[in-house]
Amino acid sequence: MNVILINEEEILTDGRVVLQGRRSEHLITVLRCEVGDRLKIGIINGMLGSGRILEIEASPYPGRVVLSISASEPPPEKLGLDLILALPRPIMLKKILAQAASMGVGAIHLINANRVEKSFFNAKLLQVGTYRQYLQHGLEQSVDTGVPQVVVHSRFRPFVEDALPALMADGTRGIIAHPGGPSPTALNPEVLKSRLLLAVGPEGGWVEFELAKFREQGFVPVGLGQRILKVDTAVVALLAQLSLLLPG
Amino acid sequence: MNVILINEEEILTDGRVVLQGRRSEHLITVLRCEVGDRLKIGIINGMLGSGRILEIEASPYPGRVVLSISASEPPPEKLGLDLILALPRPIMLKKILAQAASMGVGAIHLINANRVEKSFFNAKLLQVGTYRQYLQHGLEQSVDTGVPQVVVHSRFRPFVEDALPALMADGTRGIIAHPGGPSPTALNPEVLKSRLLLAVGPEGGWVEFELAKFREQGFVPVGLGQRILKVDTAVVALLAQLSLLLPG
Repeated sequence: MNVILINEEEILTDGRVVLQGRRSEHLITVLRCEVGDRLKIGIINGMLGSGRILEIEASPYPGRVVLSISASEPPPEKLGLDLILALPRPIMLKKILAQAASMGVGAIHLINANRVEKSFFNAKLLQVGTYRQYLQHGLEQSVDTGVPQVVVHSRFRPFVEDALPALMADGTRGIIAHPGGPSPTALNPEVLKSRLLLAVGPEGGWVEFELAKFREQGFVPVGLGQRILKVDTAVVALLAQLSLLLPG
Repeated sequence: MNVILINEEEILTDGRVVLQGRRSEHLITVLRCEVGDRLKIGIINGMLGSGRILEIEASPYPGRVVLSISASEPPPEKLGLDLILALPRPIMLKKILAQAASMGVGAIHLINANRVEKSFFNAKLLQVGTYRQYLQHGLEQSVDTGVPQVVVHSRFRPFVEDALPALMADGTRGIIAHPGGPSPTALNPEVLKSRLLLAVGPEGGWVEFELAKFREQGFVPVGLGQRILKVDTAVVALLAQLSLLLPG
């Protein structure tokens, strides 16, 4: 936790915040904070700033910490990139949500595909209150406040035929990860000037029909060389490579 | 498992191999193989090739599969990069070993540093027979055969003063990950023509003394921008960015 994230509704009218649960536990047990200490805070979907500890009650566990806060510093820039991800198994999705959030992804579209295990759409993780914590872990790691929007699309065709054109109507360009695709360095520089949508397939890859559907929407393929990587490794590797190539 | 890895000592004089345990379980239970099926095989630290299934005995669990194999195809090129990693907690190290192996890292030096928890050096994971499986998972993922060498250096000074100069005597160049360091695109092209040693610090970062010691050996800093990433995310991101910049 490199920043303590606070919901706007938690801020009392006198500007104080009372932390309980995971955050008070972290401040008391891990950081061993004391009254008067200053720490980095962020308002969720708002500004970064600092908090000063006014009170600490260590017991009953997990304690209670009262802060006075101020926040006027903008969070880091996002990547200018949204992710389309064929829904992976929940344990993999948790990792990807946290890593994508920490790297500055804007929105995450979880979609169906031929090689997606259909039962994953019933995972408890797909409930807002459940997946949100993994996004927040990623933001706490990278000191950001903007929670990526997550949208679940349980049917492939309506996504690719209806939702996708709407997502691209503002000039967003699409790239699709596919083994054997050219390196991101081969992307047309015009593509890299636009907002990007990066589509990453399931373990086992996209099927031909899916690739054709994305190509119809103007998606261009990119690859990571000869090696087949796990989905979470591939997502981080592609985000890292694209962030080198994106302006700004 | 995108390739079945076989130890040279497992190959019988008639060219057959008998698989038991994890690999037979995978072939029988996950892939539902049948006699006559062909599959991708690799000889550990040797060639890739194919195997044909001659016999399957499903019980007793996890079964037994007999293959005839041939292997004459070279594995994919390695990255031309070795990793120096401040020893992370075991759960993190498992992920990094598998991911680094899958991405083609040559050798992995696990070192001590001021912010490394000393007890991690007693982890059972640091025994050859234990960590080896995670490297192998990475190779099975990316269809490679070359097992990265892992070397544990439990004292920082002897590593940096004695071992490191020896590692760099052949013209290998060093780069050190440090928050706020310049992007890898700013690296001198001469550096990128050499074999690389990439040093990644502990959660919390290198201390000033450690940075100075690496600088004395000619290491230049690189960073990943404003965001603080977890060590496993940072390793994959840096390997991905460097692989874009390395020749070949």
